[in-house]
Amino acid sequence: MSIRVGIVGISGFGGGEALRLIASHPVFELVYAAGESSAGSRLVDRFPGVPARLAELVIAKWDPETLPPLDVLFASLPTGASAEALARVPKAVKIVDLGGDHRSVEGWAYGLADIWPDRIQGQVRVANPGCFPAATLTALAPLLADKLIEPGNIVIDVKTGISGAGRGGDSTFGYAESNENLVPYGLLKHVHMPEIARTIEQLSGGSAAGLVFTPHLVPMTRGILATIYCRGSATTGQCLNAARRFYAGRSFVRVTDRPPQTKWATGSNLAFISYAADPERNLVIAIGVVDNLGKGAAGQAVQNANLICGLPETAGLDGVPVWP
Amino acid sequence: MSIRVGIVGISGFGGGEALRLIASHPVFELVYAAGESSAGSRLVDRFPGVPARLAELVIAKWDPETLPPLDVLFASLPTGASAEALARVPKAVKIVDLGGDHRSVEGWAYGLADIWPDRIQGQVRVANPGCFPAATLTALAPLLADKLIEPGNIVIDVKTGISGAGRGGDSTFGYAESNENLVPYGLLKHVHMPEIARTIEQLSGGSAAGLVFTPHLVPMTRGILATIYCRGSATTGQCLNAARRFYAGRSFVRVTDRPPQTKWATGSNLAFISYAADPERNLVIAIGVVDNLGKGAAGQAVQNANLICGLPETAGLDGVPVWP
Amino acid sequence: MSIRVGIVGISGFGGGEALRLIASHPVFELVYAAGESSAGSRLVDRFPGVPARLAELVIAKWDPETLPPLDVLFASLPTGASAEALARVPKAVKIVDLGGDHRSVEGWAYGLADIWPDRIQGQVRVANPGCFPAATLTALAPLLADKLIEPGNIVIDVKTGISGAGRGGDSTFGYAESNENLVPYGLLKHVHMPEIARTIEQLSGGSAAGLVFTPHLVPMTRGILATIYCRGSATTGQCLNAARRFYAGRSFVRVTDRPPQTKWATGSNLAFISYAADPERNLVIAIGVVDNLGKGAAGQAVQNANLICGLPETAGLDGVPVWP
Amino acid sequence: MSIRVGIVGISGFGGGEALRLIASHPVFELVYAAGESSAGSRLVDRFPGVPARLAELVIAKWDPETLPPLDVLFASLPTGASAEALARVPKAVKIVDLGGDHRSVEGWAYGLADIWPDRIQGQVRVANPGCFPAATLTALAPLLADKLIEPGNIVIDVKTGISGAGRGGDSTFGYAESNENLVPYGLLKHVHMPEIARTIEQLSGGSAAGLVFTPHLVPMTRGILATIYCRGSATTGQCLNAARRFYAGRSFVRVTDRPPQTKWATGSNLAFISYAADPERNLVIAIGVVDNLGKGAAGQAVQNANLICGLPETAGLDGVPVWP
Repeated sequence: MSIRVGIVGISGFGGGEALRLIASHPVFELVYAAGESSAGSRLVDRFPGVPARLAELVIAKWDPETLPPLDVLFASLPTGASAEALARVPKAVKIVDLGGDHRSVEGWAYGLADIWPDRIQGQVRVANPGCFPAATLTALAPLLADKLIEPGNIVIDVKTGISGAGRGGDSTFGYAESNENLVPYGLLKHVHMPEIARTIEQLSGGSAAGLVFTPHLVPMTRGILATIYCRGSATTGQCLNAARRFYAGRSFVRVTDRPPQTKWATGSNLAFISYAADPERNLVIAIGVVDNLGKGAAGQAVQNANLICGLPETAGLDGVPVWP
Repeated sequence: MSIRVGIVGISGFGGGEALRLIASHPVFELVYAAGESSAGSRLVDRFPGVPARLAELVIAKWDPETLPPLDVLFASLPTGASAEALARVPKAVKIVDLGGDHRSVEGWAYGLADIWPDRIQGQVRVANPGCFPAATLTALAPLLADKLIEPGNIVIDVKTGISGAGRGGDSTFGYAESNENLVPYGLLKHVHMPEIARTIEQLSGGSAAGLVFTPHLVPMTRGILATIYCRGSATTGQCLNAARRFYAGRSFVRVTDRPPQTKWATGSNLAFISYAADPERNLVIAIGVVDNLGKGAAGQAVQNANLICGLPETAGLDGVPVWP
Repeated sequence: MSIRVGIVGISGFGGGEALRLIASHPVFELVYAAGESSAGSRLVDRFPGVPARLAELVIAKWDPETLPPLDVLFASLPTGASAEALARVPKAVKIVDLGGDHRSVEGWAYGLADIWPDRIQGQVRVANPGCFPAATLTALAPLLADKLIEPGNIVIDVKTGISGAGRGGDSTFGYAESNENLVPYGLLKHVHMPEIARTIEQLSGGSAAGLVFTPHLVPMTRGILATIYCRGSATTGQCLNAARRFYAGRSFVRVTDRPPQTKWATGSNLAFISYAADPERNLVIAIGVVDNLGKGAAGQAVQNANLICGLPETAGLDGVPVWP
Repeated sequence: MSIRVGIVGISGFGGGEALRLIASHPVFELVYAAGESSAGSRLVDRFPGVPARLAELVIAKWDPETLPPLDVLFASLPTGASAEALARVPKAVKIVDLGGDHRSVEGWAYGLADIWPDRIQGQVRVANPGCFPAATLTALAPLLADKLIEPGNIVIDVKTGISGAGRGGDSTFGYAESNENLVPYGLLKHVHMPEIARTIEQLSGGSAAGLVFTPHLVPMTRGILATIYCRGSATTGQCLNAARRFYAGRSFVRVTDRPPQTKWATGSNLAFISYAADPERNLVIAIGVVDNLGKGAAGQAVQNANLICGLPETAGLDGVPVWP
């Protein structure tokens, strides 16, 4: 028996990665795809490597009134567009929203699946975390839970591949200008800060007032690495042990002795975390790595969909990262 | 029931990609890995994203005398090293050699799986084609079989990602020198020419005496694109139709109306081919695209292993290409 | 005494490179810059590294009626836009048009400066060659002049960095989609073919009817490499000697024994050419390398401006290529 | 009258960039080049774009006993190798050491040229700062001089292009493994920390005990960007004004309102710095950008050589950055 799923926002990078994962999923069957720029074309026209059984599926113009029978809808729409677009989707259709509109909305579970799976199971509306929160909170959660760091004094320096900027045509993301260029942006006012601060406070019970968050665009397609500077007197070993305990039995978080690299996660739903501490300086450095389109978007979304459908959390997500 | 497989040459790019594919294979179970530079370390030390069940497997120093019970051995050794290394492997162990030493050796089937699957089924020794032959011959085969082009007058201009150069430490393949650099090499004397010429002659029954083959290193990690200039009076439509007939019912070759791009194949075992012809100029341009580590190496090797094990040809190879 | 120059199309890559070269030129003084997207901003806002003396120059909206006193105007406008835009520029203002509109127009000299400097000296209107013609014709000219190859049987396989596509916002040139992707385009119908065919015929006196030209987009910012397959019975040595004679005393063409690489030319006005021939197969391979923004655009334009202003051809063009 | 200069370590990236700058220098004349891997070959064999007048210069095997008459020697040797190599160079030969051995050695001036030109003028031995110190100290100096930040509480998160790792053949710096990979390293124990701490203390008069320094390898060839988190109550405007005062009249430091990007500096000796502060959080973020081979190595070295030779500081360093 299969579960009928749809994707809206198939033209974008998140939607494309959702397609890739769903096409190999043992239970999910893609029966609907909607897109803006690609409406009217066949899946194979936009994704030449799609399996033959999906090749002829015609990409629809999004219209919640004319959806086919669906069990789950993956929404990968620009932040600001999904709230209205999804409001009229029938309640019977479970939704995982990869966009930013529902991450602190009543009635939507926050889909930090590796940390709070029990808050997601049985839900029908899940808001997928942003890619930056996925990378940073996975590394911070064990330290916050065990009170090894001060929640109010955290500096997050994060680096992301350019697919994180989405598929818009802005020439500043053009190859010639982005290649060989490292670009800091959104200093002291990045849109992801409230989501991260809110979750730090939930995880710690304390205030995240001092949070600093600085994103940088790096000339690579995929990958996020967060270097997080915290205050605390724990040793490196205590931090690693806390993380291993915190994620014991969880499938997608790997705690490593040496600092992780973005390529370790490419194409997968894995998160890699590590720590380096210097108690003499009251310093803990946490490092988190994810694929911004995997654990940072579509991989986490499929994991959330598995949870709300009562499937094994790892269904369709056992791919080994692509190397090199 | 599972099939026990081993990999020798796990440290290299071909061996690593074989590991990735085997780890997700429904029937193959990796029970042995051998490597030079990595001997003694655990798989997880070299491949941090490997599944937990394989993480602790210790990489052995290669020794054909001390192999565990194996059904299939994938050999990904430098050309020149595999002939001797594999000579003492027990006959009962099926071998797929990704290296170049056995491609015209008595007793070894030439593993051009999409074209000659029947020559591979039932064999115990298969020599995997090189990455350049895989890309070029897949595009040429239908034209040669239907006599649409002159076998003696073919110019192959091929472009490859840098992983095709292997994992040696030569600083000319270092990032700083390879990035933003396009490098032609091996003019008029590339090692792959005889393999391609021999197969053109088998496919056409004619002489490939005039063959020209020029490889170029392109600043990307994966991917091969061959632009092949042929003489013939067929139209574009006739070439496309010949290819669609030739590969009818085959799983991994996609014939496309528009010229393929390397990213279409990334991470997959797919080959994309297309044609553009100008009868007035007696010209046929054939284009072939593969992932040099997929169809050009480990993907084709797994396909060959499926064939010699009597499994469905597509087992473990249904992954959708990674995009972007 | 300085020569007052202006640039129209400063926002684009060609205009930006012209700015870079003019800013270091011993005689040219930039007194005017016009652009579309950048009109109203200061040079330093668009080019943060511009010298202090140019920083405050405000980019004008293009209007030929309100030009300041100018000796030379560099026009780097999209093909199709320059014909009209330049028609009303006063005759007293010398023009070098980097765009494609005037390359076969009465009254405009064709600025293939390394080959025909005498056709450019003393002119007031020069049409700069395209980047593909610059790379290919530089390598072909000596062979055609000495009748070492058949003009009617030439196959040009050319690879270009993505800046060659201009600075448009087309998402297909976005970093995430262009990186790790090799893209053939314009098969059998590229816009540059007539320009190349016309010049081959002028250089050889024969017909270029059989010309084949296939461009490929390569994931790098700068650089063009043309691999050219010709018919002829000359040896490699004869081709190299012909080239060394042909370019004897010329400053910007380097004839090399080994095949050139694009990085050799990066940031310079140099062209590198080499040959590999096999008389037994009646084959000559010519290779040409340029920086598409240097010799392929702004470098050649400054060289042409030097010629029409009676300056040393090398003025402002003696920069050594950037490596790595 | 010209000044005779030599380069030892010509095979490396720093030596190659020194060659590029010296070849265009109005006064320096390159009369000697020594290298390890390249000894015996001509300059043109290693640098195909070198000017004709330098092409035939044969690269020597380094031997301080057999130096030709030299005014200035640029040494770009691996850290650890230069102390001994330079000990026997005649006192009459001025030396600028790009390596790390002399940065806190008696009798060697520390060549932080934009900050302490007067400590360099008239010297005969100058130790060029490392690339990381060049990027970070340029941004920090004005804040430390004006006591706008606490010297004991500075977190430096720095990102560097891969040429910073030098030209060794380590396969982990190979293109296939470095591309699409972001790699943190040297956590809590990077070799550059003492040099930065020492200079912070000289600039501030306080202790740098709390210094945190985390480098990351970014998949690009050139460029360094340092994101520096400091404690202080100044506003953004106060920081920018302090920097503009501190560098008033200096040629190579650009203070910008918006955060700089690495591409702004590519190929130049410029440093770009900017600040973003939040007094409510007692936070000052300083950002510094340089080309690791320009201001971070050879550009700074030529600037130091100009100073010790009594030349204008900007001689040979007025090149505009390469864009795109």
